[in-house]
Amino acid sequence: MSYSQCWLVYNSIDNYKDKDLLTDLHIYYEKDNALSNIMNNIIKELTQGLNSILNIKISANIIDGKETSSSIKSGIVLGLTGQNVINDIADTEQLTEEGYLLKEANQCIYIIGKTEKGLLYGAFDLLRRIATGEGIRGLKVIENPKNTLRMLNHWDNMDGSIERGYSGESFFMKKEEILVNQRTIDYARIVASIGINCVVINNVNVRGSAATGLITDRYLNKLKEMAEIFEGYGIKLYLSANFAAPMEIGGYKTADPLDQGVADWWKECVQNIYKIIPGFGGFLIKADSEGRPGPFTYNRTHADGANVLARALKPFGGLLVWRCFVYNCQQDWRDYKTDRARAAYDNFMGLDGKFDDNVILQIKNGPMDFQVREPVTPLFGGLKNTNMILEVQAAQEYTGQQKHVCYLIPMWKEVLEFNTYAKETNATIADIVSGKTYNQTHTGMAAVSNTGDDFNWTGHDLAGANLYGFGRLSWNTELSSEQIAAEWIKQIFPHKDKVYKAIMDILMGSWHTYEKYTSPLGIGWMVNPNHHYGPNVDGYEYDRWGTYHRANRNGMGVDRTKAGTGYASQYNEPNASMYEQKETCPEELLLFFHYIPYDYKLKSGVTLIQHIYDTHFEGVQEVEKMVEEWNGLEGLIPEDIFQRVQKRLTIQLESAKEWRDRINTYFYRKSGVDDAKKRKIYY
Amino acid sequence: MSYSQCWLVYNSIDNYKDKDLLTDLHIYYEKDNALSNIMNNIIKELTQGLNSILNIKISANIIDGKETSSSIKSGIVLGLTGQNVINDIADTEQLTEEGYLLKEANQCIYIIGKTEKGLLYGAFDLLRRIATGEGIRGLKVIENPKNTLRMLNHWDNMDGSIERGYSGESFFMKKEEILVNQRTIDYARIVASIGINCVVINNVNVRGSAATGLITDRYLNKLKEMAEIFEGYGIKLYLSANFAAPMEIGGYKTADPLDQGVADWWKECVQNIYKIIPGFGGFLIKADSEGRPGPFTYNRTHADGANVLARALKPFGGLLVWRCFVYNCQQDWRDYKTDRARAAYDNFMGLDGKFDDNVILQIKNGPMDFQVREPVTPLFGGLKNTNMILEVQAAQEYTGQQKHVCYLIPMWKEVLEFNTYAKETNATIADIVSGKTYNQTHTGMAAVSNTGDDFNWTGHDLAGANLYGFGRLSWNTELSSEQIAAEWIKQIFPHKDKVYKAIMDILMGSWHTYEKYTSPLGIGWMVNPNHHYGPNVDGYEYDRWGTYHRANRNGMGVDRTKAGTGYASQYNEPNASMYEQKETCPEELLLFFHYIPYDYKLKSGVTLIQHIYDTHFEGVQEVEKMVEEWNGLEGLIPEDIFQRVQKRLTIQLESAKEWRDRINTYFYRKSGVDDAKKRKIYY
Repeated sequence: MSYSQCWLVYNSIDNYKDKDLLTDLHIYYEKDNALSNIMNNIIKELTQGLNSILNIKISANIIDGKETSSSIKSGIVLGLTGQNVINDIADTEQLTEEGYLLKEANQCIYIIGKTEKGLLYGAFDLLRRIATGEGIRGLKVIENPKNTLRMLNHWDNMDGSIERGYSGESFFMKKEEILVNQRTIDYARIVASIGINCVVINNVNVRGSAATGLITDRYLNKLKEMAEIFEGYGIKLYLSANFAAPMEIGGYKTADPLDQGVADWWKECVQNIYKIIPGFGGFLIKADSEGRPGPFTYNRTHADGANVLARALKPFGGLLVWRCFVYNCQQDWRDYKTDRARAAYDNFMGLDGKFDDNVILQIKNGPMDFQVREPVTPLFGGLKNTNMILEVQAAQEYTGQQKHVCYLIPMWKEVLEFNTYAKETNATIADIVSGKTYNQTHTGMAAVSNTGDDFNWTGHDLAGANLYGFGRLSWNTELSSEQIAAEWIKQIFPHKDKVYKAIMDILMGSWHTYEKYTSPLGIGWMVNPNHHYGPNVDGYEYDRWGTYHRANRNGMGVDRTKAGTGYASQYNEPNASMYEQKETCPEELLLFFHYIPYDYKLKSGVTLIQHIYDTHFEGVQEVEKMVEEWNGLEGLIPEDIFQRVQKRLTIQLESAKEWRDRINTYFYRKSGVDDAKKRKIYY
Repeated sequence: MSYSQCWLVYNSIDNYKDKDLLTDLHIYYEKDNALSNIMNNIIKELTQGLNSILNIKISANIIDGKETSSSIKSGIVLGLTGQNVINDIADTEQLTEEGYLLKEANQCIYIIGKTEKGLLYGAFDLLRRIATGEGIRGLKVIENPKNTLRMLNHWDNMDGSIERGYSGESFFMKKEEILVNQRTIDYARIVASIGINCVVINNVNVRGSAATGLITDRYLNKLKEMAEIFEGYGIKLYLSANFAAPMEIGGYKTADPLDQGVADWWKECVQNIYKIIPGFGGFLIKADSEGRPGPFTYNRTHADGANVLARALKPFGGLLVWRCFVYNCQQDWRDYKTDRARAAYDNFMGLDGKFDDNVILQIKNGPMDFQVREPVTPLFGGLKNTNMILEVQAAQEYTGQQKHVCYLIPMWKEVLEFNTYAKETNATIADIVSGKTYNQTHTGMAAVSNTGDDFNWTGHDLAGANLYGFGRLSWNTELSSEQIAAEWIKQIFPHKDKVYKAIMDILMGSWHTYEKYTSPLGIGWMVNPNHHYGPNVDGYEYDRWGTYHRANRNGMGVDRTKAGTGYASQYNEPNASMYEQKETCPEELLLFFHYIPYDYKLKSGVTLIQHIYDTHFEGVQEVEKMVEEWNGLEGLIPEDIFQRVQKRLTIQLESAKEWRDRINTYFYRKSGVDDAKKRKIYY
């Protein structure tokens, strides 16, 4: 096999105590119909999974769902709500569209859903519990996803490269052709098992005739094959579209969203897509961003731009996902008033309520761009009458590029738990993106995927936890980072305390460790331009991207208070006041909001400059400890994983030292302040 | 025409007062032989040139060179020494191989040479005098080139791109094929007219099978056509070769220069080349440099490496040119002891006398890499028993990339006039590279060419003066910068005082202006990595290239005294002592040799930091003045040239401001010192 099965590896478990509940597989189904793709896949997953984990051979026994009684004695029982037998078992009123109920009763394990998708998620849940060694006797769980959209954005290009890809080449496309093969199926299984139900397969930067042409007959028949595989696992296929497509492929002289010809062109284009792919999900659009075309060219708003596409999709139930990553990327570093952090809020707040009901704004977690530490974007706390989903980046563009371990779930959890104070009540990001605050129809999360055609899918084996965690979190935003890590570890690695503890330690500490040895206190951006790997303190300091640290010989940081760019005022109170004042601003974001002298005393009692030195030395020490912990796993875990991770940890350690020394030297040269602990700082 | 004729444009001149001397063209020639290519070219150049400049139609009259008397009454007379009639005219004993004598006598203009190449150079000289409006009555000039090698290095790649090319694509190659067409002929004419006699057509970085394969049958027959065109203009074709060619195309397991198989492979390779191209010049080699293969891989010296190739070339009179640009490009910025500036001297001094007599070391003018200001390399002052030529870079890699005007002849003149104190006597670089000091056989200069397939050949029209000037200077190192500029201006532009003065002003000031607004006092390298355009103070500061400024809050500069890297000691006395001491070190190189505090007082009385501010403001003002001067030429010069240069001056001005502001801000932030003149420095 040229690739792993990730957390669906289904390692065998000895002495599983509830094996006796899993003797058979009974399925209530309308016997008049052939089994759907999803049902077939559920049967396959359960039979193969149980065989692999518990060495059980079971076969599926189809029972007519219209029957009123059953003589089932034990085993797994699948059925939809509404089927008579199932109604006797449990109260299923709480179940939503994709939810499921898992219940042990009378020696049987019931998986009950309102839809087949619910059954699929229930089946994967059951397998996960068994694979992690959890007992299932007495089980009673109702699980409804918190969000309707649980989406992966793949930044795959038609030539097979992946923008910000650190795991090999694309498995969706190669040399301008679409790939559909066994890996497509395994991809669908793997991501469906964690609840993903929307997949955008191509880069949001839709460049070139092949990528722009994905929405045309040139590719649709091949995409139909892919979409059908995806549907068998409850996943809808989405495509990133080029806002200028009416010009680039339609031959129009304009892409003006208010031009009737343009609107008609999109209608025909979408009709044609649905004719071939009836289950098509919709479009993802990056417009007026980093050189991409958009409505600004025609003096139209982003609502105009989004709605024209949304109206074409509407008759077919399609959705239009519109990115809010819109900012001036031609800023002059000499301009202290323009602030990229303000851009999403400034560009979109005035459009609240102006988007059609099948438009969804996709908003990045922070106001900048996936730095190791940013404040939460104020836009979620502002918009009230707009569908919105949270965008995070599993691809570790700024967090070590899958050469460094950086378990991102704790970061995403902090974002989700951030209280926006919208509606003058408690309203966390999780509440808002799940529709709890304003009752939007379409809710959810999207992640820029970290996958590629590497053997382990994610380059770094431990980066698999981010992909896994994103799916689980988008399903249930209330899961904790530890819970997610625990599930992931137990599915992949042998159930040994030492293994569990070491990997849990490494994962749980990794984000803070990475933060320690990279850019300090929320300032971000001290990376090499373009590829974004490795330290370069001034790399973006005099550039056009709006990403500055403003360090001088006395201090550093960006004044985003009212005296500065005024960004802090974009938050609801009391957040706005909290950020406005140095004293109340959370210290991990101090340099994001304030210019701070090197001799400023932090709450810990040390000065800013000493804090920089301390954290950078500590960060490297923590990586050294990670290496040690990992080395202790030799012989206890699969050799190939051990070797791959060990190799990357070596790279991480070297890189962490380079970060430590460059940052410390840079600020030593600027501040002239010696390290209080007299450690080695190059002059 | 898709390209200009540069200084061979031959604008018409009214009222040329010595037109009466140019009535005919008489050529003494052995009538038994058909006219050689060179002779045909001379006739073509003279007849077409005079026709174009003076509207004279003359035809060539061939007279048997064995005759003893002549009845010529007026006109141009060409003849070789040794021919009876010619011997009567002038004492030609001083003429060397490629030299010529121009003499007016009895209403005739004699062009006399020892070889046809001499006649060719004489003919171009005569045309130049006429085109610039100089009178030729009473003319008597003997010109011998100071150097035997006057070489252009083209860094053209087989795909048609040019490394460090700022003038379009290659006119020698495209899509892995060799181009031979009318432009090849015009190229040869243009460069022969300034004395170029060796041309390396391909990049010294010989990468890929096509470039490596240039020395094989795959390309040799096409190259033969090019070589024959070149020969008609006295030019020898050279090729850059891949040191690992025995492995990459020969299939050997090694390229060890002491391996007999490798030596035999090179012999056969060279034999084959000469079989097809008998006039082949030889090879240019970049070895063990920036990732290129070389003898270090086999623990052999560069003498071993060069000699194996030289011995293969020797039987055919071929030369082996070996670059001394060898240094550690994997330096750690934390390492203060390793010094790239030392590398050429450290690597090659021990090999003095160990190279075969047809090996020529090609040594860059400075110890680093073509910065706007560097000291002269100490290697020329060290080697005594080695052929060596001076390498300069006409391509403006670090001097504005042909978007900025930067007339480089004044820089090269400073290099040539530098006294090395070799042999305990006066011995300038010009003396050494011309063989005056140690009587080497092979002498000369090489320039990295600044040409491409742009209409004007050099991207910036004014960059043509660098190509022109390099040829003229390599022929006669004693020409002044003004003289060269004057010739160039008068050949191309209308003979009007305002035009002459403006362009002369712009050219002559341009290098110092560029130096003023870029990196200060010889420190160099404050450019963006990789492409090297535009300011980036820390761009190379923490990188692996050995190129640091070591700026901190108190001062900046690299200590290259005995207390530092010891580089200054590589010079002969009294240079070594001069550089060793701050007080005697030429100030334009102060930061190259010393770490200097910002408050250090320069001889002008201003501090280092104030000097940085002052020069950066001045530099921009000087560009503004250039723009003004140029704008005054509208209508006085060809419109296309006016427009092209105007456009680039606008770019230069913007870029100069960016340089000024970034450098000033960077050092203001570091030093905290205000500008004494209170000009705008961004904080």
